[in-house]
Amino acid sequence: MALFTLCARAAAQSPILPPPDSVSLEKLGLMNSFPPVGDQIVNNENRGKYPQMRWVLQHTREVVPTRNIRRGNSPVSELPAAPRDFDGLVFEDDKGQKITVAEWQKNTYTDGLIVLHKGRVVYERYSNQMKAETPHLLFSVTKSFTGLLAAQLIHEGKIDANSVVSKYVPELAESAWGDMTVQQVLDMTGAVRFREVYTDPTSEIFPYLYASNLLPVPTGYAGPKTIYEFVKTLKKEGEHGAGFVYRTVHSEVLGWIVSRVTGKHFADLLSERVWSRLGMQEDAYVMVDAVGTPLQGAGLNASLRDLARFGEMLRRGGEFNGQRVFDRSVIDELRKGGDREKFKASGMSFRPGYSYHNQWWILHNTDGAFEASGVHGQMIHINPAAEMVVVKLSSHPVAGAGLTQALTLRAWDALAKAVRTLDK
Amino acid sequence: MALFTLCARAAAQSPILPPPDSVSLEKLGLMNSFPPVGDQIVNNENRGKYPQMRWVLQHTREVVPTRNIRRGNSPVSELPAAPRDFDGLVFEDDKGQKITVAEWQKNTYTDGLIVLHKGRVVYERYSNQMKAETPHLLFSVTKSFTGLLAAQLIHEGKIDANSVVSKYVPELAESAWGDMTVQQVLDMTGAVRFREVYTDPTSEIFPYLYASNLLPVPTGYAGPKTIYEFVKTLKKEGEHGAGFVYRTVHSEVLGWIVSRVTGKHFADLLSERVWSRLGMQEDAYVMVDAVGTPLQGAGLNASLRDLARFGEMLRRGGEFNGQRVFDRSVIDELRKGGDREKFKASGMSFRPGYSYHNQWWILHNTDGAFEASGVHGQMIHINPAAEMVVVKLSSHPVAGAGLTQALTLRAWDALAKAVRTLDK
Repeated sequence: MALFTLCARAAAQSPILPPPDSVSLEKLGLMNSFPPVGDQIVNNENRGKYPQMRWVLQHTREVVPTRNIRRGNSPVSELPAAPRDFDGLVFEDDKGQKITVAEWQKNTYTDGLIVLHKGRVVYERYSNQMKAETPHLLFSVTKSFTGLLAAQLIHEGKIDANSVVSKYVPELAESAWGDMTVQQVLDMTGAVRFREVYTDPTSEIFPYLYASNLLPVPTGYAGPKTIYEFVKTLKKEGEHGAGFVYRTVHSEVLGWIVSRVTGKHFADLLSERVWSRLGMQEDAYVMVDAVGTPLQGAGLNASLRDLARFGEMLRRGGEFNGQRVFDRSVIDELRKGGDREKFKASGMSFRPGYSYHNQWWILHNTDGAFEASGVHGQMIHINPAAEMVVVKLSSHPVAGAGLTQALTLRAWDALAKAVRTLDK
Repeated sequence: MALFTLCARAAAQSPILPPPDSVSLEKLGLMNSFPPVGDQIVNNENRGKYPQMRWVLQHTREVVPTRNIRRGNSPVSELPAAPRDFDGLVFEDDKGQKITVAEWQKNTYTDGLIVLHKGRVVYERYSNQMKAETPHLLFSVTKSFTGLLAAQLIHEGKIDANSVVSKYVPELAESAWGDMTVQQVLDMTGAVRFREVYTDPTSEIFPYLYASNLLPVPTGYAGPKTIYEFVKTLKKEGEHGAGFVYRTVHSEVLGWIVSRVTGKHFADLLSERVWSRLGMQEDAYVMVDAVGTPLQGAGLNASLRDLARFGEMLRRGGEFNGQRVFDRSVIDELRKGGDREKFKASGMSFRPGYSYHNQWWILHNTDGAFEASGVHGQMIHINPAAEMVVVKLSSHPVAGAGLTQALTLRAWDALAKAVRTLDK
């Protein structure tokens, strides 16, 4: 089982999954005694393993160094409640079987699910010991925050999307990013040799996982020890701009550019521009590497309701809580999406018709939906036509979205249909 | 230089200290670029060294695992301001020289200082990049939080102070704590072999520092890897109750008892009983070891103003922000202090007339003052007669209070005298 697989791939065949009830934190009793003993222990060595990872996703900062993203002292913004019981809502899954929304959540190891319609909370559920105040690891949803900040800085004229990366980060001149444009980084069409083959020990994924602290460094590891030392080693392979290939390292490089241009740490920038302005309920936080560099491709942690506020801000075109947080044109540009032909290079046939633009997934459906997505089932889904925002946080045993995406799309449709009936 | 020396001892002779300006974070530029390079880097290897430690004390969770202490969503409680400029206030130091309050702060490497009089903020200063929202590592001030929670639980009948520790923690039956009473733990009169001799590699201080993650584990270390595994190895030496000997491990054991009795993690208990009730401005947090056990003797981090709120609650006998947080009798008992004759066993002649009771330092002066204290200059000082609370957070190069305590006592007197004149 390729855990912490940052690249979302289709599973070649359906793996055998543990029954969700058998790996609930309630059942396992992980870290629930003083001290935990034996199988209850989650530590640096087993934190990437399943089911221990289920605990980690709600307790990231208890096992690794992190940096706080402060909400500040502004009042918490209102998320008005208009609860509807969607538990029993039935839809047809990708195998043609009837399934309820409650079953879908359980079967996909959901920790938290919230549905907003016209800014009102119509459905909200927590499982597996998650609470409203629990920050949850978001994995690649992090990229979409990085992308949005970068797009805003481009809009403000602080970054030139058509400049090469080495203009901002000269240290990358000899790497794959030396002659890659910022826009190619944003859209992941830059050509970089980065193999994610877990059966090949020479794959670049391993030094990335260790340099980023996503996995503990094995004894004797002699490779790069920080994210930026690692990305400097990566070489060009192919032609920039030819096709979309999903690579987490692009987001790390994008983060480097943003920090260089602003002179600010991602955590501080996100606090200033987003967390302190949306009336968030909780501080968020981000994993950092051995020299404090944030994991801008995978390290963000936030609560379900705060992500709903963020999604609602996007649905409203960049405004929420009486504040304009991102320019409308930045959101409009994002929603246009990228090149759907180039997207096919990704091999992500489980995301039919999608494109990837400015670190966001665009569905190109009639509702104009777009989303952020992270391994093990993290999602922010925005459906402007249905005036709906859905956030789903999970601890699925399978990393990649390939196994579950067809079902996810059907769930989005069922929820959009359900919220539309609320208007009538 | 004995860094992270948790036991506060008198310096045998005055060490040569770096000029404060030469080790300011502004001057050193630690961790202020993307990425930091060369001497700017603070990492797991050098985090216990000076001056790198100056950065760590304001960024603990960026280098080690921690657990959050949530303030919740209640409004921030008011700390009314009545500012007075004490910068130029002159007093006589312990060498008979005139010194101003500003010079005292600078010379003792102060990061933050706040003085409350009758609940109003009369003086508040930040240095060395510290801000009002910065959580600062408190070292042994942590013990006083642990002690207060334990004393409250005794008051509630949940812990029997006269029971032996092994009643609550059977794992300690064969250790020094097997036949030690809870009160002896609280007052540090239990007899445990725990040598803190930095020149002797067999000293028990080393496995404690590694097991607690206060210092990084050296290659080849084969000792206990968690706090509780470590304390289990410590043996009785001498007679319990004979004299006060300051030992951080007592506070760790006390924390173990509290967690066992309540079934709650220190972070959650502190959130429920203190942080969520005092209208704190910021979440606090605590360092945890390799299995999530909190460092109840040394690992708490909190902001200056939140510590002022906590101190003010104590000055008022356990009530603040319209809430009773601790029973008045618990505070009254604490203020009575311990046995001043037994205190002499500590060899802490730099704390003349003091006693130690329920993990607090009692001055036994005419003002009825009591305080919490941590290495490198962390202090919460409460003077009930002068209706004054002072919190001082520092990053002094010398760990122990022995070098500075005589000067500290003179500063307390000068500040108490100054606030008293405000009434006239």
